[in-house]
Amino acid sequence: MRRALELAANGPATGPNPRVGCVILAASGEVLAEGWHRGAGTMHAEVDALSRLPGGGARGATAVVTLEPCNHTGRTGPCALALIEAGIARVVYAVSDPGHESSGGAGRLRAHGIDVLGGLLEAEVSDFLADWLAAARLGRPFVTLKWASSLDGRAAAADGTSRWITGPEARQDVHRRRSAADAIIVGTGTALADDPSLTARDAAGALLPGQPMPVVIGRRSIPSDAALRSHPRPPLFLPGHNLRAVLADLHGRGIRHAFIEGGPRLASAFVAAGLVDEYLVYLAPTLLGGGNLALGEIGVTGIDGQRRLTIEHYDRLGDDLLVVARPR
Amino acid sequence: MRRALELAANGPATGPNPRVGCVILAASGEVLAEGWHRGAGTMHAEVDALSRLPGGGARGATAVVTLEPCNHTGRTGPCALALIEAGIARVVYAVSDPGHESSGGAGRLRAHGIDVLGGLLEAEVSDFLADWLAAARLGRPFVTLKWASSLDGRAAAADGTSRWITGPEARQDVHRRRSAADAIIVGTGTALADDPSLTARDAAGALLPGQPMPVVIGRRSIPSDAALRSHPRPPLFLPGHNLRAVLADLHGRGIRHAFIEGGPRLASAFVAAGLVDEYLVYLAPTLLGGGNLALGEIGVTGIDGQRRLTIEHYDRLGDDLLVVARPR
Repeated sequence: MRRALELAANGPATGPNPRVGCVILAASGEVLAEGWHRGAGTMHAEVDALSRLPGGGARGATAVVTLEPCNHTGRTGPCALALIEAGIARVVYAVSDPGHESSGGAGRLRAHGIDVLGGLLEAEVSDFLADWLAAARLGRPFVTLKWASSLDGRAAAADGTSRWITGPEARQDVHRRRSAADAIIVGTGTALADDPSLTARDAAGALLPGQPMPVVIGRRSIPSDAALRSHPRPPLFLPGHNLRAVLADLHGRGIRHAFIEGGPRLASAFVAAGLVDEYLVYLAPTLLGGGNLALGEIGVTGIDGQRRLTIEHYDRLGDDLLVVARPR
Repeated sequence: MRRALELAANGPATGPNPRVGCVILAASGEVLAEGWHRGAGTMHAEVDALSRLPGGGARGATAVVTLEPCNHTGRTGPCALALIEAGIARVVYAVSDPGHESSGGAGRLRAHGIDVLGGLLEAEVSDFLADWLAAARLGRPFVTLKWASSLDGRAAAADGTSRWITGPEARQDVHRRRSAADAIIVGTGTALADDPSLTARDAAGALLPGQPMPVVIGRRSIPSDAALRSHPRPPLFLPGHNLRAVLADLHGRGIRHAFIEGGPRLASAFVAAGLVDEYLVYLAPTLLGGGNLALGEIGVTGIDGQRRLTIEHYDRLGDDLLVVARPR
C-alpha cells in the first residue's frame, strides 16, 4: 500500500479526480504491475495497472489500491467491473469512496466472490486525499477562506491602503497554497479595487506550475484590461450571489478545492453561509484601527452564536503569524 | 554578582523601587555580608549589607551590587555616600541607574577614589529589572495593554455579550500577569458595563499574593456596590482623560508597571497617544463579526501611518493564542 501511495503521488494534485495508485501482486507476493491515475478522462489506477498485463495475467492476483475501486461509469468504465473481468481474486484498499455516484465498488466486488479488505493505511491515505475526500463528502468544493489582517482585525487602513500589511514570507505562503487549489475566487469589489492577477507566483514573480482557475463573483463588469483577464486560464465570471449555487456550479466544472481570497464582503458571506471548511488567517504585527475590517457581518448576534473554530496549526512567517483553523 | 541577583529576587516584584541585591566581599574573596532591598521606605541593599557588619568592618572591601548605587536622598540617604563612609575600596555593579534623580552614584564614588566597575552580568540583570528600568527611562509607568478578541478582532458579539471568548488557560494567564503589575486600569465604561473585580485570582478564584491597585479613568460615577470597591486595595478614581497626566499621577504614586485592561475606547486612546510599551493580545479561535471591536480609532489614516509592532513571543494557551508584541 505504501508503494501504491507513492504511485498515487505521481498524479496531478488538482482537478476533479482523486490521485490513486494501484499495485497488482501475484499470490507469491511478486509485483506484476503498477498503475496510477493521470487525471480526468484518463485511465483509473486499477485499469492503468491491469493494462500493463497480458490477457489473463491478473487472474487470481491481488489488487492493492489506495481508494476503494469505483462503481461508476463516467468517461471511463467502473474499475470494480474491470477488476472482476480481469479475474482478480483479492482487493485491498485504504480509503472508502464517499462519492454519491462512485461508491459501492467494494460491495460489487464482494458480490462477485472477490475477497475485499478496506482500511489499510487509511489515516495516511485519507490525509493525502483530504481535500478531495472532503469535497466528495460535501458534494461541493472544499472551501479555504484566506485573509490577511492587522492584529486588530483590519484588512486595510481607513483610507483603503493595504500594501503591504503582511511581509514577503506570508505572501509567498499564500501563493504556494493558491497553486494547490483548483480555483481562486474573489468578488467584483476586490477585482475592481485591487486589480489582482489571481495567479500563483514564486518569490521572483514567475508563475508556479499549478494555476487555479480565476473566478469572479458578482454582477459588476470587469474592465477588458483587468489583470485577471491575462491569467493563463480563462477567468470564470459568475454573476449569482447564491453561494451554494456558485459552489455547485464550480463542482460541476471539476473544482474540488476553492480558495476564497476576498474581499471582506465575499469572505463574510461565505462565513455567514457556513460554507468555509478551512481558514487561513495571516496576522501582521501592526495596528490600523478604522473601519476596513477583514471580516464584516457574519450573522452572529450574541456570544452563544459565535462561530467557534479549532486551531489546527500556527506558525511564524517572517514577522507575521499564520493561523490555520477549521470550524469546530 | 549571581549571588547578588539571587538576593535581589527576595525583594517585592512590584512597587516603586527596584529589586536590588548586594554582597560585601573581603580582599580575600570571603563573603563578609549580604543584603537586599525589601521595598520603598526600607534600607537599600548596600546599606542593608553594610548594617550587618561591625563599624569599620567594610574598610577596604568590595561591594558587588546589581544596580549602580544611588546618589539620591529620598526616604533613605544615598547609598554612594554610605559606601564611601564605610570605607569600601571597590564597587562592582551590573546595571546603570537611568533615574533622573537617583543616577550619578558611580561618578560620586569615583570622585572619592573608589574603584568602580559597571556592566557585570548586565543583560541578565537588565532583564530582571526590565519594567523598572523602562519606567525609570520613560519617567512614567511601563504600560502593558491587554485585550482578548476573536480571530476577527472583536471583543464582544454584536449584542455586547462576551463571556467567554477566551478559555480558562488564557484567563488564568491574564491573572498571573496582572498580579505582577502595580496597577490595573479600566475606563468607567468597562467598570459600569462589566462590573469587574479587578483582582488577580488563581484558577480556584482565590486572591493571588500580588494585587495591583485598581484604577478607574473617566468622569462617570461608579456605584457604591461595584465589585471593584471590594478590592483589597482601595480603588483610585482619576476623572481626567489626559493620559500623560494620568500616567504622571500614577508614577508619582509609585506605580512602575500599569496594566490596561479596557475597554476598547481606553485601549484605543492609549494606542493613539503612543503610550503602550507592551501588547498582550489573546486571540480566541472564534468569529463574531459585528461592531464591537477590541480596538477602535487609533488615529491611523493610511497604511504608511500603521503602528508596526514586533512580535516578541507567541504561545498557545489552551484553545487560544497569546501574542506578546512591542512597538517597533
